[in-house]
Amino acid sequence: MTYCVAMCLADGLVFASDSRTNAGFDQISTFRKMHVFEQPGERELVLLSAGNLATSQSVISLLEKRLSAAPGSILGTSSMFEAAELIGKTMREVIHRDNPNGAINHVDFSCSMILGGQIRGEQHRLFNIYPEGNFIEATKETPYFQIGESKYGKPILDRVISYTTSLERGYQCALISFDSTMKSNLSVGMPLDVAIYRRDSLKPCFNDRVTDQSRYFQALRQQWHIGIQALCNDLEPPQLN
Amino acid sequence: MTYCVAMCLADGLVFASDSRTNAGFDQISTFRKMHVFEQPGERELVLLSAGNLATSQSVISLLEKRLSAAPGSILGTSSMFEAAELIGKTMREVIHRDNPNGAINHVDFSCSMILGGQIRGEQHRLFNIYPEGNFIEATKETPYFQIGESKYGKPILDRVISYTTSLERGYQCALISFDSTMKSNLSVGMPLDVAIYRRDSLKPCFNDRVTDQSRYFQALRQQWHIGIQALCNDLEPPQLN
Repeated sequence: MTYCVAMCLADGLVFASDSRTNAGFDQISTFRKMHVFEQPGERELVLLSAGNLATSQSVISLLEKRLSAAPGSILGTSSMFEAAELIGKTMREVIHRDNPNGAINHVDFSCSMILGGQIRGEQHRLFNIYPEGNFIEATKETPYFQIGESKYGKPILDRVISYTTSLERGYQCALISFDSTMKSNLSVGMPLDVAIYRRDSLKPCFNDRVTDQSRYFQALRQQWHIGIQALCNDLEPPQLN
Repeated sequence: MTYCVAMCLADGLVFASDSRTNAGFDQISTFRKMHVFEQPGERELVLLSAGNLATSQSVISLLEKRLSAAPGSILGTSSMFEAAELIGKTMREVIHRDNPNGAINHVDFSCSMILGGQIRGEQHRLFNIYPEGNFIEATKETPYFQIGESKYGKPILDRVISYTTSLERGYQCALISFDSTMKSNLSVGMPLDVAIYRRDSLKPCFNDRVTDQSRYFQALRQQWHIGIQALCNDLEPPQLN
């Protein structure tokens, strides 16, 4: 399994992904699920992936291999929309390569991706690309997307994240959302990759690799855990008569 | 879908269930998913159910129909373990009645149940009964069980509930767990049924039916929502340089 979350906020974009992959409980590995395509001053694109690792790795490899192609390069797209189209098309190509005609039906070849970033001349944008290669875009009403094991970490996002949330708050909430998820699901695991893009900068993201030893993450998860207990202590007690 | 949670705590038992059932988005009904079998001074049993409504209703109906049977009555069992065995057996009986030989494989006939309570001469106990009719019992290390749509509401339970948690705190956490779940999943809905059993009382539970208009629930969910925002405001800000 995997857990990835990305937010499209007024001030920019926040991305976070775990790095655990597993094929059964006894085949566990660490793979980075965040990939960046960048041209400073021109574009900054961040791609998060979940699902079949063979599929998502092939999609990334093909996108990288074709960077210098005339048409078909993700660096040649003139909008985030076109970039999402290209990624969706590449996903369908890989799945068709590995499972033509859908003949093998006992293996799930599918993957999901989140694409966010900015291309010069456009706003910063965020897309959720489905396994079928089609996609939806985040809006002010729905400013974040999750892929993978999303349920445990959703309540904190729903309670805190809105379009006007700051990048710092978005980063904190993403880390808390991961902490809640990792407590409940062994298939989501450290280290985490975090990227934060400031709108209109067209510069490489702020990047962080968060491990169990990261001082800030340790402090945050402890502050949160203690804070939740304190919040419970302050709640009005029920009358059980 | 359904969401039910029950806790086996040092001071007694806490049960909560939603009441929404659905067969598709446009076939929504309200059914109570909490059933009580009691003999004051002798036993108090609470049963929560999730899954196929036809199956769980038949199980309850058969248990009620057989209350006066010589063997086979849930009021005749001499331990909570025997009561869990009887319920598991009745689940298998109903599923076999409706789908002998497992021939119909496009319908999920299964249901899950949580049984908790106390029979005179024993401690209070809590069991999670699987669709196959086998079951596990809660322990001090794992004092709560959930059935149905359990993921959204699990982090708050993991952070707060332990065996020594008070019944009042257990009740509050159950309500917050439901609030988080209902925000994210339309198939879990109000009103909620809550029952609280004080250990060794062998008396009927404290019962509550929580609706959207319940003053205590309204106050609690608002306190929690505001408290989470405040907790976020107090977190140490990250350095994004």
